Amino acid sequence: MQIAILSFFHYFTHMFKKRENILEIEEGKALSPKFNPDGLIPVITTEKKSGNVLMHGFMNEEALIKTIETKEAHYWSRSKNALWHKGKISGFIQKVIELRIDDDQDSLWMVVDIGDGASCHVGYESCFYRSIPLGLIKDIENIKMEFKEKEKKFDPEKIYKGQPNPTKI
Amino acid sequence: MQIAILSFFHYFTHMFKKRENILEIEEGKALSPKFNPDGLIPVITTEKKSGNVLMHGFMNEEALIKTIETKEAHYWSRSKNALWHKGKISGFIQKVIELRIDDDQDSLWMVVDIGDGASCHVGYESCFYRSIPLGLIKDIENIKMEFKEKEKKFDPEKIYKGQPNPTKI
Repeated sequence: MQIAILSFFHYFTHMFKKRENILEIEEGKALSPKFNPDGLIPVITTEKKSGNVLMHGFMNEEALIKTIETKEAHYWSRSKNALWHKGKISGFIQKVIELRIDDDQDSLWMVVDIGDGASCHVGYESCFYRSIPLGLIKDIENIKMEFKEKEKKFDPEKIYKGQPNPTKI
Repeated sequence: MQIAILSFFHYFTHMFKKRENILEIEEGKALSPKFNPDGLIPVITTEKKSGNVLMHGFMNEEALIKTIETKEAHYWSRSKNALWHKGKISGFIQKVIELRIDDDQDSLWMVVDIGDGASCHVGYESCFYRSIPLGLIKDIENIKMEFKEKEKKFDPEKIYKGQPNPTKI
C-alpha cells in the first residue's frame, strides 16, 4: 500500500519538468506541459499524408504519457470521463508519427497514421467534414454549410453498436 | 437606448441556429456552434501550403462572426481578455481560405494564408516548433525536445516592443 501511494505520488508530481520560467517554457527543450483546471491539454490530430485535421481532443497527464510511450494515441474522453485508447472499439488505432507542443506548452499537435481508416464517430475520415461559407452574411441562422466529404468511410451503427453517442446538445 | 438593448439582445440570442437535436448538429447544414462555459470555442489554424498547424486559439461568438464576414482571422485573446484581430500589431494578418466545424460543432479548423509571414509571438512560423521524442521513457523530466524550425522568421522584441508576453507560467 505504501509503495502504491509513493508510486501515485511520484506519478502525479514528478512526471514533467516543473514550469519555472517563461524563457525555459518557450525556448527550452524540456517538456513542461500546462494542463487546464480540469487537468486537460487540447490536442490537434492531423493525418500524415493529407495533412487534414482529423479531430480536436484532450489528454490528461496519463493519456499524454501513454501516447508518448506506446506511440498510439490516447486521449481523455470527456463524454465517458475515462482514459480513451482511440480505436480500441472501432479498430481505427492512430499510430503517432510526430508529437509537437506549442510555445507556451498548453496545446499539442499530433501527426498520425490511420491507414485507410477513419477518425470520426459519425463515419467520416475527419471530424471536420463541413465547411462554413465565408463573406458578409445577412442571416447567419440560415446559412448552409457544405459537406467536404461526400461518403462515410464506415457505418457507425455497425461499428459502435450499443455505444452511446458522445455528442451532446 | 431601447434600440441598443434590442440590438444586443438580437446579437447574442439569434445569431446562430439553436442546438436542438443531435442528428441536425452532426448531419445537418446549419451552423450551431457550441461555446464552452467561458463563451469560447477552440480553433485549429493551419497554413494552406504546408498544411502545418500554426496555432491553437479560441473564438467567442463575435470573433467567429467577424472572421466569417471579413475573411480575416479574429480570435478571443485570453491573455488580454479582448477581441484579437490577428496581425493587427505584427502585420501578420491571416487570410481565411477555409473554415470548417467538427461533428458536434464544438471546435473549428481554419485554413489560412499568411504569405511569407509568421504566426507565433516567439518569432517562429508555427507555434508548434518543438517535437517531443517518442517511445519508452525512463525519465520524462529530463527528455529533450527537438526544434523543428531552426530559425525565427522575425525578432519578437522589435515587432512586439512594449507588449506584454502572453505566455504565463
